[in-house]
Amino acid sequence: MTATREDWQRACVIEPPPGYTPHIGVLVAMLHYARLTTLEAVAGLGVEELDATPPGFSNSIGTLLAHIAAVDRVYQRLSFENRDFDEGEEAVYGGALSFGQAGERVRGLPLKHYLGELEAARADTLAELARRDDAWLASRLQVPGFDYPNHHWAWFHVMEDEVSHRGQIRILRKALKAQAQR
Amino acid sequence: MTATREDWQRACVIEPPPGYTPHIGVLVAMLHYARLTTLEAVAGLGVEELDATPPGFSNSIGTLLAHIAAVDRVYQRLSFENRDFDEGEEAVYGGALSFGQAGERVRGLPLKHYLGELEAARADTLAELARRDDAWLASRLQVPGFDYPNHHWAWFHVMEDEVSHRGQIRILRKALKAQAQR
Repeated sequence: MTATREDWQRACVIEPPPGYTPHIGVLVAMLHYARLTTLEAVAGLGVEELDATPPGFSNSIGTLLAHIAAVDRVYQRLSFENRDFDEGEEAVYGGALSFGQAGERVRGLPLKHYLGELEAARADTLAELARRDDAWLASRLQVPGFDYPNHHWAWFHVMEDEVSHRGQIRILRKALKAQAQR
Repeated sequence: MTATREDWQRACVIEPPPGYTPHIGVLVAMLHYARLTTLEAVAGLGVEELDATPPGFSNSIGTLLAHIAAVDRVYQRLSFENRDFDEGEEAVYGGALSFGQAGERVRGLPLKHYLGELEAARADTLAELARRDDAWLASRLQVPGFDYPNHHWAWFHVMEDEVSHRGQIRILRKALKAQAQR
C-alpha cells in the first residue's frame, strides 16, 4: 500500500495520463497526486487511531477517510447520472458523506477497509472519466434541486475537498501523537 | 473583502479566464477558487483569534495565512526565476514559510495585514503566469539543489497546499469557537 519513489515521481508530474482527454487527464493527475498524499497521511494507522477524536477536534481520521470516499460516490451520481443519491445509496453512504450527521458514523474498522472503499470509489470515477471528453468537462452540470457550475468544477472540488481533509488528517495525526507522548 | 454571490458564481466555473493559455487558465481558476474559500474561512477574525493556538494544534490561523502567502513567493522564485530565495528574501519570508521554524513567527497583526500580503503575492503570480504558455507549464522545472517535476505541478501544489491549510484553518476556527463557548 505504500507509495514507492517511482509512484511519487510519476504523480509529481502533472500531465494527462494516456486514455483521457487533456483537461480531464490533468484533473486525473491531480486526483492521483491528492490520493497519494492521503495514503501517506494515514499509512500504518490502527483502529484506535482511526476512531480517535482528540480534544478540540470534531471528526476522527476514519470519519474523514469515509467522507472522502463517499464524496467520490455522490459526485459520480451528480456528474455522470445527473441525479442525487437514491434512498438505497443514501442509506449506504449518507452517514459517511455527512460525517455522521445524516446516518451512522463509520467506526471500528481497520485501515484496510477505508483504503478498499477509497480505491473502489475512485476506480469507478476514473472509468467514467475515461469515457468522456473535454467538451463535456466544460459543460454545465445540471441536477434537479442543485445549482452546479460545470463538470470541471465538480471533479476539481472532489480533489480539493480530499486535500482539505488530508490537511486536517495531518494535524489530527500530530495531535494523536502528542497525546500518546504525554 | 467579503466575496459576493457573483464572485462565487464566477469562481465555481472552472474555466480559463481571458488572458491565459488553456491549462494555465484552468490553474488560475483553481487558484482563484481556493483563495475565495480561504478568505471565507478567515472572514471577520480578530488579532487574538489569528494568534491563538488551541490545545492539540501547533499553528495559529495567522501562521497558516502567512505561510500561504510565502508559498506563492517562494514558488515565484523557483518557477519563474529557477532559483530559491536569496538571503534577503529568506530573512523576510523564511519565518512565515517555515511556520516559525526558520525565522520569526508572524503574530500580533490584524487580518488586513495577512490579506494584503496574500493579495500582493498572488498578483505577482498571476502577472507572471499571464506572460507564459502551456508549453512552458508542461516543461521540466529545474532548480539547482531541488528536484522538481514540472511547472504544472509547482502551481498545482501552491493551490493544493493552500487548500490543505484552509482545511486546517476551518477546524482551528471551530476549535476556537468551542473554546470560547466553554
